[in-house]
Amino acid sequence: MTLRRHGVSEGILFTDLYQLTMAQAYFRAGAHMKNARFDYFFRKNPDYGMHQSGYSIFAGLESFLEWAETARLNRTEVEFLKRLKTTTGRALFTPDFIRWFSKHGAFDGVRISAVPEGRVVHPNVPIAIVEGPLAQAQLIETALLNKLNYQTLVATRASRIREAAQGRMMIEFGLRRAQGTGGNEGTRAALIGGADFSSNVGASCELGFPPKGTHAHSLVQAFMALGYGELGAFRMYADVYPDDCLLLVDTINTLESGVPNAIKVFEELKRKGHRPIGIRLDSGDLAYLSIHAHKMLSAAGFPDVSIVLSNQLDEIVISQILLRISEEASVFGVDPDAVARRLTFGVGARLLTSEGCSALDGVYKLSAIEQEKDWRPSIKLSESPAKTLNPGRKKVWRLYDRRQKAVGDLIALEDEHPENETRLVMRHPLRVDVFRRLNRSELSEVEPLLTRVYGNGKRLRQTPPIAEIRRIRDYDLARLDLGVKRLINPHIYHVSLSEALWELKQSLIEAEKGSPAKGPKVHRLRKLKRKKSKK
Amino acid sequence: MTLRRHGVSEGILFTDLYQLTMAQAYFRAGAHMKNARFDYFFRKNPDYGMHQSGYSIFAGLESFLEWAETARLNRTEVEFLKRLKTTTGRALFTPDFIRWFSKHGAFDGVRISAVPEGRVVHPNVPIAIVEGPLAQAQLIETALLNKLNYQTLVATRASRIREAAQGRMMIEFGLRRAQGTGGNEGTRAALIGGADFSSNVGASCELGFPPKGTHAHSLVQAFMALGYGELGAFRMYADVYPDDCLLLVDTINTLESGVPNAIKVFEELKRKGHRPIGIRLDSGDLAYLSIHAHKMLSAAGFPDVSIVLSNQLDEIVISQILLRISEEASVFGVDPDAVARRLTFGVGARLLTSEGCSALDGVYKLSAIEQEKDWRPSIKLSESPAKTLNPGRKKVWRLYDRRQKAVGDLIALEDEHPENETRLVMRHPLRVDVFRRLNRSELSEVEPLLTRVYGNGKRLRQTPPIAEIRRIRDYDLARLDLGVKRLINPHIYHVSLSEALWELKQSLIEAEKGSPAKGPKVHRLRKLKRKKSKK
Repeated sequence: MTLRRHGVSEGILFTDLYQLTMAQAYFRAGAHMKNARFDYFFRKNPDYGMHQSGYSIFAGLESFLEWAETARLNRTEVEFLKRLKTTTGRALFTPDFIRWFSKHGAFDGVRISAVPEGRVVHPNVPIAIVEGPLAQAQLIETALLNKLNYQTLVATRASRIREAAQGRMMIEFGLRRAQGTGGNEGTRAALIGGADFSSNVGASCELGFPPKGTHAHSLVQAFMALGYGELGAFRMYADVYPDDCLLLVDTINTLESGVPNAIKVFEELKRKGHRPIGIRLDSGDLAYLSIHAHKMLSAAGFPDVSIVLSNQLDEIVISQILLRISEEASVFGVDPDAVARRLTFGVGARLLTSEGCSALDGVYKLSAIEQEKDWRPSIKLSESPAKTLNPGRKKVWRLYDRRQKAVGDLIALEDEHPENETRLVMRHPLRVDVFRRLNRSELSEVEPLLTRVYGNGKRLRQTPPIAEIRRIRDYDLARLDLGVKRLINPHIYHVSLSEALWELKQSLIEAEKGSPAKGPKVHRLRKLKRKKSKK
Repeated sequence: MTLRRHGVSEGILFTDLYQLTMAQAYFRAGAHMKNARFDYFFRKNPDYGMHQSGYSIFAGLESFLEWAETARLNRTEVEFLKRLKTTTGRALFTPDFIRWFSKHGAFDGVRISAVPEGRVVHPNVPIAIVEGPLAQAQLIETALLNKLNYQTLVATRASRIREAAQGRMMIEFGLRRAQGTGGNEGTRAALIGGADFSSNVGASCELGFPPKGTHAHSLVQAFMALGYGELGAFRMYADVYPDDCLLLVDTINTLESGVPNAIKVFEELKRKGHRPIGIRLDSGDLAYLSIHAHKMLSAAGFPDVSIVLSNQLDEIVISQILLRISEEASVFGVDPDAVARRLTFGVGARLLTSEGCSALDGVYKLSAIEQEKDWRPSIKLSESPAKTLNPGRKKVWRLYDRRQKAVGDLIALEDEHPENETRLVMRHPLRVDVFRRLNRSELSEVEPLLTRVYGNGKRLRQTPPIAEIRRIRDYDLARLDLGVKRLINPHIYHVSLSEALWELKQSLIEAEKGSPAKGPKVHRLRKLKRKKSKK
């Protein structure tokens, strides 16, 4: 049995069962239409083992919003739901709930605010906020997490690789080892985060990019087995693509066979008035081979053709290759910059599957619920204090210093206006003894990060093209401290709570734990009129 | 810009650009209809860092074959292809090639043999073989790799987790952190490899499984914020699902609040004649909490309800939990088996994204091409000897000893019949000095592994249901040595070459490298009539 492409597994049932059972429980309790608010945030930047990112790049929002716009319970799906049984063989979902779900189970009631795609984002900061009827806001969770977690994961990796490649071209080659059809979303995220192009034809075409590629070993092998040799294979390829001739030179032996044969073909092309594009190295010591291939190509009168590197590349491998070239090229009488200048990087599985950190730990947590026109903040404690939620309806601000560099993100309550305050208090999310005071005059900007992106079942603005999302990324990265962008051991970017949020959190923790309230704080608490739990 | 669901990115253009440009090069050279043969194999079992698997479970075949059956170039796709340009602005694909591609670019010419899904498979063994017109066999590569690599990766992880869980129920919960829509294929592979059920509603429904689930913290948080407390939330849930009541008990404090409240609700259910299902623990020290939750539940008269564990589980964490329970339960006056018996494992991101090894290194390599009715073996050398291909048209056999245990896989040339030979020579794939002789009488079975699964554009048999694929898996796992299944440091399973294949490989290596042929071997070579390359 297989999954039908375009089947029910990609629509509104692209979800976990418990979203449906919880929605029915809310429905039965009459709580399904209460306004609720959920925050999406992640707790840690991607951590690849020996090296953790100092920031993330947000992506996946448009894919998620498009899903939310179009996901509607259809007849096939209703039939599936009707067939599900309880342990005693009764219908798991009752007809009245299915009727409600068919009519209101789409997402026309929710309002979504989010950070735009391409922006630099940080742990614990709500980067998408869903507000609306409890059942709808619950039902949207799984797809939201799936789409935002994965694309943010890949966009972040792509940005790191782009930093490592220092402005050289980078092409995404990962579809063959991507995690199923998710590879298409991976390609999109890679193009947002840092890849210039992708080899993925379908996704590139849909996103408005020309797909890119070279050729595989099989082409050389096929023509070799047919008796033409590597040179014959290259000639055949050059004949078909005289102005796009990029040759893979490591099928037999890179320096003894591949590069000399490529040079012969390039000379033939040149004589016919064409400009060869380059060679690709896919195995062996890529730094060493780049230096020597460069030397041979330059000596033959091809100082500019590209050298494309591929084979298990990531940000660390790329920076090692560049470092080794800068250290070793001169040993062989070669200018390291001349070698490095002609490099292009083809990045595959390690980018699209985010090897070393295959999932972002993004979560979607209830922060408040409305009861009789009064929003009640919600908290969840945890044995690990870092996992205790920041409660209530919140907004997020980014603060920039006079150099226009981001100094930190401030999570505040919705009715606060840090942009108007003369002195800001930035509280450490956990530690009572760590806080920071900033005078507004020290800051060049206090920027709200979230904007309304979805309401009445529709996106509220046109989907920006990838090029615009990249401009957003570049602008944000330019305002991020170099230390935070460092590939290994980056500076920690500060995410703080406002004084009011910090106090709300403390008082809820105390109330929840039943510990004696510390008088001086509780009276300053706004809007906390919780009934005692019946416990 | 987003990817349109059900757009061109999932059809025949779910591929890398170079497959299309190579197909056009073959077309231009008149080589596109030559019969070619490609092998799919992987080089290493999944390696999760500190622990590498000793085997893999094959999955993804039916998804791939379904794609091959239905992928056809449509008008939208033709328009995309027509718009692609060379660097000089001419059409990248010429009208005659696009005509050919529209007419013959589907996969009606290829024949595919493969190992059935669910079978135990090993490195370097061809587990899917595609034979047919060179251009078609080339065009099929990316989708084949994508679908087989990912599902095999996840089925293998699921099988290991199932081994670690020692027969306890295991449910896949990973969609929220899966890699995009690939999560659906991940669910399928998890169900093949070892998960009993999944929380993924759409995929479960399509695959004929009831989806499973509990509830989230948000349900408790919502009812708490509305003033009902954890106990009120549990009661609300139990009221809606009296016969399916599984309560998440760690929102406030597991042992002080969650479990006592769950017990109250279970008692109420019991009085009304219902049977509660269990509790779920999602944070903290799961071994310790399991022991104490078990003690409390048993003391309250619920010795059988399940304890579902979740939170970053994988095979190592699960075996540690079971080990710790077996060591520590008696300290608290509890029978460790009684605790372990009631456990169920919910496994999420670490299963669906194969955390620690996010991609299988499966490759698709040309092994032979037909010229004038004569099949010419193809080889690709590599600076890493382990990567040098096994050339020629091959078949694969699995040998079983008298205990019915698999002793090794034998890769032989297609015209060999090891099942009829009285003495088998098993050659180490690389080392000349390592080989093994087996008398047929020592073996209970010599089993061919590959069967024809696709031809004339169709699957040649009905897609087996997941339940049948699981029976295949169980039968194979039972015939695999315990040592090979070990989670850490497994025995290495032997994959060998037949004498004839070994000799073909050596002679091709010598011919390719231009080294002096070692007389005695070359004359025994069959069917090798390669022209000298023109080099």
